[in-house]
Amino acid sequence: MNRTGSFRKNLKVWKHKRTSPGAAPGAINLEEDAFSPQLYVTSFNSELLFEMPFDSLDQVQERIHKYPDMVHWVELKGFGDKSLLERICYEFNIHRLEIEDVINTYQRPKLEEHDDHLFIVTRLLKMNDGSLRNDQLSLFVEKNLVLTLQENYDEHFEAIRTRIRTGKGHLRSSSSDYLSYTLLDSIVDTYFPLLEVLGERLDELEDELFTKPTRASLQRIQQIKRELIVLRRSVFAERDKVNDILRSTSSLISEQTKLYFKDTYDHTIQVMDLVESYKEITASLMDIYLSSVSNKLNAVMKVLAVISTIFIPLTFIVGVYGMNFPRENPVTGELLPLNMPELYSPYGYVGVMLFMLLLVMVQLYVFWRKGWMDKT
Amino acid sequence: MNRTGSFRKNLKVWKHKRTSPGAAPGAINLEEDAFSPQLYVTSFNSELLFEMPFDSLDQVQERIHKYPDMVHWVELKGFGDKSLLERICYEFNIHRLEIEDVINTYQRPKLEEHDDHLFIVTRLLKMNDGSLRNDQLSLFVEKNLVLTLQENYDEHFEAIRTRIRTGKGHLRSSSSDYLSYTLLDSIVDTYFPLLEVLGERLDELEDELFTKPTRASLQRIQQIKRELIVLRRSVFAERDKVNDILRSTSSLISEQTKLYFKDTYDHTIQVMDLVESYKEITASLMDIYLSSVSNKLNAVMKVLAVISTIFIPLTFIVGVYGMNFPRENPVTGELLPLNMPELYSPYGYVGVMLFMLLLVMVQLYVFWRKGWMDKT
Amino acid sequence: MNRTGSFRKNLKVWKHKRTSPGAAPGAINLEEDAFSPQLYVTSFNSELLFEMPFDSLDQVQERIHKYPDMVHWVELKGFGDKSLLERICYEFNIHRLEIEDVINTYQRPKLEEHDDHLFIVTRLLKMNDGSLRNDQLSLFVEKNLVLTLQENYDEHFEAIRTRIRTGKGHLRSSSSDYLSYTLLDSIVDTYFPLLEVLGERLDELEDELFTKPTRASLQRIQQIKRELIVLRRSVFAERDKVNDILRSTSSLISEQTKLYFKDTYDHTIQVMDLVESYKEITASLMDIYLSSVSNKLNAVMKVLAVISTIFIPLTFIVGVYGMNFPRENPVTGELLPLNMPELYSPYGYVGVMLFMLLLVMVQLYVFWRKGWMDKT
Amino acid sequence: MNRTGSFRKNLKVWKHKRTSPGAAPGAINLEEDAFSPQLYVTSFNSELLFEMPFDSLDQVQERIHKYPDMVHWVELKGFGDKSLLERICYEFNIHRLEIEDVINTYQRPKLEEHDDHLFIVTRLLKMNDGSLRNDQLSLFVEKNLVLTLQENYDEHFEAIRTRIRTGKGHLRSSSSDYLSYTLLDSIVDTYFPLLEVLGERLDELEDELFTKPTRASLQRIQQIKRELIVLRRSVFAERDKVNDILRSTSSLISEQTKLYFKDTYDHTIQVMDLVESYKEITASLMDIYLSSVSNKLNAVMKVLAVISTIFIPLTFIVGVYGMNFPRENPVTGELLPLNMPELYSPYGYVGVMLFMLLLVMVQLYVFWRKGWMDKT
Amino acid sequence: MNRTGSFRKNLKVWKHKRTSPGAAPGAINLEEDAFSPQLYVTSFNSELLFEMPFDSLDQVQERIHKYPDMVHWVELKGFGDKSLLERICYEFNIHRLEIEDVINTYQRPKLEEHDDHLFIVTRLLKMNDGSLRNDQLSLFVEKNLVLTLQENYDEHFEAIRTRIRTGKGHLRSSSSDYLSYTLLDSIVDTYFPLLEVLGERLDELEDELFTKPTRASLQRIQQIKRELIVLRRSVFAERDKVNDILRSTSSLISEQTKLYFKDTYDHTIQVMDLVESYKEITASLMDIYLSSVSNKLNAVMKVLAVISTIFIPLTFIVGVYGMNFPRENPVTGELLPLNMPELYSPYGYVGVMLFMLLLVMVQLYVFWRKGWMDKT
Repeated sequence: MNRTGSFRKNLKVWKHKRTSPGAAPGAINLEEDAFSPQLYVTSFNSELLFEMPFDSLDQVQERIHKYPDMVHWVELKGFGDKSLLERICYEFNIHRLEIEDVINTYQRPKLEEHDDHLFIVTRLLKMNDGSLRNDQLSLFVEKNLVLTLQENYDEHFEAIRTRIRTGKGHLRSSSSDYLSYTLLDSIVDTYFPLLEVLGERLDELEDELFTKPTRASLQRIQQIKRELIVLRRSVFAERDKVNDILRSTSSLISEQTKLYFKDTYDHTIQVMDLVESYKEITASLMDIYLSSVSNKLNAVMKVLAVISTIFIPLTFIVGVYGMNFPRENPVTGELLPLNMPELYSPYGYVGVMLFMLLLVMVQLYVFWRKGWMDKT
Repeated sequence: MNRTGSFRKNLKVWKHKRTSPGAAPGAINLEEDAFSPQLYVTSFNSELLFEMPFDSLDQVQERIHKYPDMVHWVELKGFGDKSLLERICYEFNIHRLEIEDVINTYQRPKLEEHDDHLFIVTRLLKMNDGSLRNDQLSLFVEKNLVLTLQENYDEHFEAIRTRIRTGKGHLRSSSSDYLSYTLLDSIVDTYFPLLEVLGERLDELEDELFTKPTRASLQRIQQIKRELIVLRRSVFAERDKVNDILRSTSSLISEQTKLYFKDTYDHTIQVMDLVESYKEITASLMDIYLSSVSNKLNAVMKVLAVISTIFIPLTFIVGVYGMNFPRENPVTGELLPLNMPELYSPYGYVGVMLFMLLLVMVQLYVFWRKGWMDKT
Repeated sequence: MNRTGSFRKNLKVWKHKRTSPGAAPGAINLEEDAFSPQLYVTSFNSELLFEMPFDSLDQVQERIHKYPDMVHWVELKGFGDKSLLERICYEFNIHRLEIEDVINTYQRPKLEEHDDHLFIVTRLLKMNDGSLRNDQLSLFVEKNLVLTLQENYDEHFEAIRTRIRTGKGHLRSSSSDYLSYTLLDSIVDTYFPLLEVLGERLDELEDELFTKPTRASLQRIQQIKRELIVLRRSVFAERDKVNDILRSTSSLISEQTKLYFKDTYDHTIQVMDLVESYKEITASLMDIYLSSVSNKLNAVMKVLAVISTIFIPLTFIVGVYGMNFPRENPVTGELLPLNMPELYSPYGYVGVMLFMLLLVMVQLYVFWRKGWMDKT
Repeated sequence: MNRTGSFRKNLKVWKHKRTSPGAAPGAINLEEDAFSPQLYVTSFNSELLFEMPFDSLDQVQERIHKYPDMVHWVELKGFGDKSLLERICYEFNIHRLEIEDVINTYQRPKLEEHDDHLFIVTRLLKMNDGSLRNDQLSLFVEKNLVLTLQENYDEHFEAIRTRIRTGKGHLRSSSSDYLSYTLLDSIVDTYFPLLEVLGERLDELEDELFTKPTRASLQRIQQIKRELIVLRRSVFAERDKVNDILRSTSSLISEQTKLYFKDTYDHTIQVMDLVESYKEITASLMDIYLSSVSNKLNAVMKVLAVISTIFIPLTFIVGVYGMNFPRENPVTGELLPLNMPELYSPYGYVGVMLFMLLLVMVQLYVFWRKGWMDKT
Repeated sequence: MNRTGSFRKNLKVWKHKRTSPGAAPGAINLEEDAFSPQLYVTSFNSELLFEMPFDSLDQVQERIHKYPDMVHWVELKGFGDKSLLERICYEFNIHRLEIEDVINTYQRPKLEEHDDHLFIVTRLLKMNDGSLRNDQLSLFVEKNLVLTLQENYDEHFEAIRTRIRTGKGHLRSSSSDYLSYTLLDSIVDTYFPLLEVLGERLDELEDELFTKPTRASLQRIQQIKRELIVLRRSVFAERDKVNDILRSTSSLISEQTKLYFKDTYDHTIQVMDLVESYKEITASLMDIYLSSVSNKLNAVMKVLAVISTIFIPLTFIVGVYGMNFPRENPVTGELLPLNMPELYSPYGYVGVMLFMLLLVMVQLYVFWRKGWMDKT
């Protein structure tokens, strides 16, 4: 359905790979068309920077153990290899339920605190060819390790890798919690251009509704409404998640980094505010659409009423003079002087025509006074 | 009523077996057409597995006492035997008020904590031939015993019994709390296919409303609205119940199992989110329906207006030339040269016809400019 | 007003006996048409049962003091005797503000805890000849005494007195708190048949709105809406009151009895749920009514449009052949061959009639294709 | 504007005397047309009662110091004397910000607790000639002194002064906190007659909307809506204020008096409940109005459709027989037997007339079956 | 777009200077068209007052250090100099994230507490040529220093500087917290004239909607709605901010000053109340607009129906007498006495005309009885 995009796909309701009710929890059931996995590790401290793709988890573990005083950012893109995912559980001490949440990419944003790691689910919303894309990004934050997992090969974090390379900001000199902040903040920041796009659409729609409303406008309103519903669900949960991080007592997040997360929190509040405002605007656009439908009907009816009201009496008048009351009885020849004497006056026809002209002018004047000739 | 299913039946308002106001609490009043009871016991630990139907409660008790280190899952289907229910109260130390709640199958999902057992009421919603079925499942969780009671012979838990048989997951090696988690989680999981069905219906309805809206669409909107109301009531209470379990201080639920219940909690939140989103969508479908009714009227009125506006003036014109103003007074023979001289011109008829053709073309052009000839 | 019942009477806004603003609090101002008081005392323990009407409060007090180890249930019906009410204040140690609340029967349900007694106000809603009756019942609970006061001679508690007589349940062997539970629970139970009635009406209304909506349907929707508003106010306050009882620290209510009140609390939650669901249904019925009004208009307009669109062009055609363009100039006798030669063809009339028949058939086909001939 | 009263005046948004943004807080800026001040002191204990107007604050202070064991109620009406107000600040130890709130009579109801006095702002709403008057009353409660200030000469407290004079209730024997309770309670009591008036208007409006809805009904709905908005703002704040009093730890309010304030609190809850119910009713009246507008249109369209559908075919038929197909070619004299032979039948005219009569009867029957002849 | 002002600009969604997602936090990115900075310092205590513009931050610092016992109010207008902003961070010990919030002028009002300073963001809303201007003001409050920063050269604080100069109130003798109160209070005070303007517009709109509603009215409703959305967001956050100040434990705000902030808090509550009331009014104006559109249609249809219903039967009648049933067969000469004998009566024409006149009068009477001739 190319109309409003696939709504259920956006809402991420339920995926077929999810097994039937009654299945064991923590089951790793991959989709058939899952992307083959790509591993990429970026290791840095304030002085050093290594980054390269890896083929196997062994190499990754080796790297991590070799440089215990660096921050290691392990990226996994594509969930096509079940055994790799199971090894990740084993190597990084991750619960099977968590990996299930990573793979079933319809989770709400959330924070789960464990003794040795944090598990963070976040949603990445992007406008793609006019329809909303709604992907899931999962993060595991450990002492000097951040593990990010995503279903496809999206290059969203490229900008951050550039910042690491160029060594800008205090990213290079800080710990894994600041890296995770940087990653999460970059995701919340994607809401702003999204809202910008939606805001522009709302402005255009309002213009359209006031100038040339069509049935397609209604579909556009409906589409924005649905996108806002998706957005709202995401942002609410995102806000709760960042709030959970702020209130977290885990030693993995320093007070210093929480200061930055406070900033992210402010941004989510701001986004929520805007989404709520947009929802109100959208609701009022619906009202404007409905009123414009009524206005169109009014315009049509006014034209019909003006034309009818002018011509119906005229047609009656000419009907009168089309009656066949004769001047004299055709059989007896008796004169019938009361039968339509107007017909036989030299000025009968001209008089009737002038009378009708006068009538039209009076009617037009009345309509003009009533405002029926107005544009609105 | 085959239209929207029986709404009150879905809401489970009030059942006739419930005695009149003023009756004693804890009264066991069976429905006349209640199913005859079936007892089935599954006993397992990591090594052993016995499962079989039983005829009497004595045999069940005997089994339980014989194997004190196994988990016993006692299933009762059908509430047709009052004395059996009363003996269950007595044998398993259950309050009469609790059994009353089990039998009056219109309870909200809830958790009641007692010293030696937990009482859990849960609702099982299923789509059955296009209408929602809303059954009640009651659980009693004791030290090494889970007692499930249901009104009819529904086979919902078959998948779990299969998992026990095949010994998959850590179900076989865990305690009664994990079994109860497994049972409850399987019930929450039934919401997802339900929502999938409703989501598909909403998408189809939206398509229908934009292409060919009928009065039947309105009935379908109404039906979905009602099903969502039922669903919402259920899910809200289910969420509260799982939350109560998470915050429970009862020794019957281990911290380890609560980790799994946290997962169930996340699922209920997700379901609630979706139900809320679906409600908003349904509300906007109503708006679309209403606007489509107006649009239809507009379309009809436009055709009427175009036809009327074209032909009414034409009819007037031909009426003019149907007037009987004569060329000469039939009695006196006086010539009346001003009376409709057009009639006597050689090109009068052709001229009038061409003039009317021109008029029609001008009108059509105006309508086309006004957008009245558009499809919308 | 026989239409929607007396709404303000149901809401119990303000009663004339309530004195003007500025009057002293605790004033006992009786209505002129108040019923004359009836005193009835039921005294019981597990072995004994006395019940009889009394004429004076002295006799009642005598009875109570004579049997200190029985539970005494004193019923007062009718507030026609001011001095009796004042003596009740004095004898049972009741504050004048409480008696004012008893008499001004428009109180919200509430619990007031005092050292030596509890004061409970509750509302009794009943469907009476199709309209809602909204009465007040007041309870005072003391150590071994329950005092119930009501304005009229309603026999609502008859079923409970029967239970006391037959000695069923553990009512006979328990204390005054259990008696008060029994009384209050019987009142909450009256909501269920009420909701059953309203649910049936909603189902009937929906049927009516889809088959034969009239202006009277709107009045019925409005009446249900108003009854739900009254019901909702009552139930919300009732829920709060039962919750207050559950959280009460008064020694007058035992933990054992609170277990039963928990059951009552569940019932009020259930009623609230249903009332909210019914309100949503009622709101959607309003939408259905409004859409049915529009649909009716559409149906009428379609018929008008079909008839007009078929006959207006036909009328134009016959008008054309009613024009008086002559074959020859009546004065000069000049032949005018271009003037309506069709008229003089042998098949002119038949041809025109057939042409019009064809036109009608084409139009009908177009309408059929456009769906204008459909029932909806 | 005599239509809906002055809405902004009711809302008390902003008054011109309030100085521009940036002005110093606590500035006493009087309105030019302020009433000249009137001082009236009522001093009482259980035995004595003095009451009289005073000219100067000195006399008042003298009186208060002379009788330290009486309760003094100082009333000031009219804010026309700036120096007097400043002396009141000084003499009674009142902060300039408080006096600013007294004079700028658009404050929300509130309680401010200070060590030696309480400052209470309350709103007095009255129905005045059909429109809502919204005045402010300010109270300062000290040890044995209550100071009330109001802008105009309203006699609202006359009833209470009468109660003091006649010595009814325990008002005369109690302290300043009970007097302030009496004053505040009398103000909350004014809401009930207000709601009674609004309730009556709503009932009348509903009747009107079902029988003879006009554009004026809409204005009345709008007016009630606005009055309810004003009322609601007031009552919400009033409720919060009384709640603040109940939770106050100030020694100026005794526990005994709080019992009475609890009663006032119940009344504000009751008023809030009613205001909310009225708002819902008003919203549904709007729906009824809108549907009645549609119904009127339907009625008009039905008449038009019936008349048109009956006469348009008839007019076509008579048009057919008005066609000028001749019996013989006027020039050649050729007989044209197919041209309208009906015209020349002896029963042609009668036949056509009877056929049309039949047609009308069939149509009327169809309309009757379709329900178009119904009243609704 | 000159219609509803630039909505997104008012909402301050996202500014282009904000760098792309993934950029480092705390980055200072100036807009190209930023105003060049102006520094102005006002230093005062109860005796002394210096005020003058400065060119460099060094001079400002020098001044501050020279007079440690004065309150220094440093104003910076215009953010055109990046190095100056960076020096401010350094000199006044301000975090880069804070300066980022100052420059990106789309922040929600908020309070951030730090050990040595408070950071306050506030929004200044002004009606500018009929459209809402939404600027940001940032404050840093330190021991004896208040630093205000704003993007443009707005002279909002001029009134306060005048108060400092004239030495009115206790502003001159108090500390930096009272100055910051004065500044913030002056901003909250700007909401009142704004609401006054909006209230006037709402009153005018209601008048317009009841007398002469047009499509432009709808646009005005929409504009007010949008302005209220912007206002509401601002005020809610402002209220939270002032509440945060009241609950702040920072030593920078004295208890005495909190008393004044309590007053500001009351004002924000009042503004919120009014904004909510205005939103409800606006919603009901939308309903009135929609109903007026329907009423217009009704009026048009009534005229059409009256004209049609009067003339359609008349036209039929004259059509009857325009039928060509002859008195005698033109060919055979046979007399046809039943063919329209009325035509040959001496009073036929007059009779028909009188009959039609009577018919019109009857119809007019019926319409008058039905109320179709009424104005509404």
